Amino acid sequence: MTRNGAKLYGARMAISSDRVELFLAEKGIEVEFVPVNLMAGEHYSEDYRRRIAPNARVPALELDAGTVLRESVAICRYFEASQPEPALFGGTPLEQARVEMWQRLMELELLMPIAMAFRHGHPAAKALEQPQIAEHAAVQKQRAEKRIGVLDKELAGRDYLAGDFSIADITAFLAIRFGRLSKIAPEPGHVAVQAWMERVAARPAIATALQRIKDAS
Amino acid sequence: MTRNGAKLYGARMAISSDRVELFLAEKGIEVEFVPVNLMAGEHYSEDYRRRIAPNARVPALELDAGTVLRESVAICRYFEASQPEPALFGGTPLEQARVEMWQRLMELELLMPIAMAFRHGHPAAKALEQPQIAEHAAVQKQRAEKRIGVLDKELAGRDYLAGDFSIADITAFLAIRFGRLSKIAPEPGHVAVQAWMERVAARPAIATALQRIKDAS
Repeated sequence: MTRNGAKLYGARMAISSDRVELFLAEKGIEVEFVPVNLMAGEHYSEDYRRRIAPNARVPALELDAGTVLRESVAICRYFEASQPEPALFGGTPLEQARVEMWQRLMELELLMPIAMAFRHGHPAAKALEQPQIAEHAAVQKQRAEKRIGVLDKELAGRDYLAGDFSIADITAFLAIRFGRLSKIAPEPGHVAVQAWMERVAARPAIATALQRIKDAS
Repeated sequence: MTRNGAKLYGARMAISSDRVELFLAEKGIEVEFVPVNLMAGEHYSEDYRRRIAPNARVPALELDAGTVLRESVAICRYFEASQPEPALFGGTPLEQARVEMWQRLMELELLMPIAMAFRHGHPAAKALEQPQIAEHAAVQKQRAEKRIGVLDKELAGRDYLAGDFSIADITAFLAIRFGRLSKIAPEPGHVAVQAWMERVAARPAIATALQRIKDAS
C-alpha cells in the first residue's frame, strides 16, 4: 500500500463513494477516509459546501494543498495519472478508449436507470429526489432489467468488460449490487452476469475493500 | 489537418455526434464522416446494429481494422491518447482530473437535464422516449436553468471551465445550444455564461466545424 496524504470525504454504501474505495484498493493506494453522514445531512452543512463541495455531494478528494477534486471518476483519474500501474483505465489508446466506452455504457445504460429507479421509487430516497415520479421509476427499473439481460450476452465467454479488469467493472458491479434496493437483479438464467459478479467480488483487493465498507457502515 | 483512415458514423445536430466533430476540429484531425439518418431510422437498421452499434446509437468510430468504438467521449479519448497535443483532456494528473471533474459536472448536472427536458417534453422526441413523462421534463428544465445560473458564477473571471480549453467546454457549450429546443437558455443577466459561449464559438476550429455541421444538416 502506498500512503497518500490526501483526504477522501465519502459515505459508505453510496455508489460513487464506494467506487473510489474499490478503485484505490485495486491500485494499492491508501487514503485517509473522512466519513460524511448523509442521513444527518452533513453534506448540506455550510462548512462542507464552502470548503469541499458546493453541490453538496460525495465523494470529494482534498489534496494536501487544500485543492479539492469532486466527482468519483475524476478522483480515480487523478490516481491513475499519478500512478499508472496497475492500469484501470486501459493502457494503449485502443484499450483506453474501450475502457471509456464500457465505463460510459455501464454508467449511462445501467447505473443511471438503477439510480433513477431508486431515487424516484424508494421511500428512503424521498429527501434526495423531489418530486419522486413513480412512473419514471417503473420505466427505469424495466430499462435496467433489460440492460442486465444484454450484459449477460456481452459477458459470455469474457472475464471482464473491456478485456482486463477496469473501472468499468467496478461501476457495473456496484450498480447491480445497488439495484437490490429497488428489486433489480440478474435473473437465474443470467449465468454470465452472475459468474462475473462472483469473479469481481473474489478479487482480493475488492473482497477486502467490500468487507471494510460493510464493517464501517 | 492529419488525415485518419477511420470512419465516423454520426448525425449532425445530435449533441454526442457534434461533440466528436468539434473535438476533432480542435485536434486538427480529419476523419471520413458517414451520415446516419436518424429521422429515417437508419440507426435501427439490422446492418447498422450488427456491424456498428448494437444499441443503435450514434456516433461510432470504425477503425481501419473493422474494430468499432462507441460512445462519443470514448472516441475522443482514443484520439487524445493517439495524438496527445493539443491536450483536450488535460496534461498533468491534476489537470486531467480537473477536466474529468468539469466534464462530468457538465454532463450530469447540465447536459443530462437538458437532454431529458427534450426527450420527455418535445413533440419531436416522441419516438425517442416512450413514454414521455411531462412532469419529468418540467423538473429537468428547472434544474438545467438553475445550473446555468450556477455556471454563471463559476465562469466569472475565467476563460474556460477547467483552466485551458477542454472537452468539458465542448460538452457544456453544445448542451446550452441544444437547450434552445426546450426553451432553456442563459438569462440576460448571465453575462459570464454568455461571454464564454461567444468565446468558445469564436475559436477558429469550432467556428469552422459549426459552419460545416450547419451546412450539412
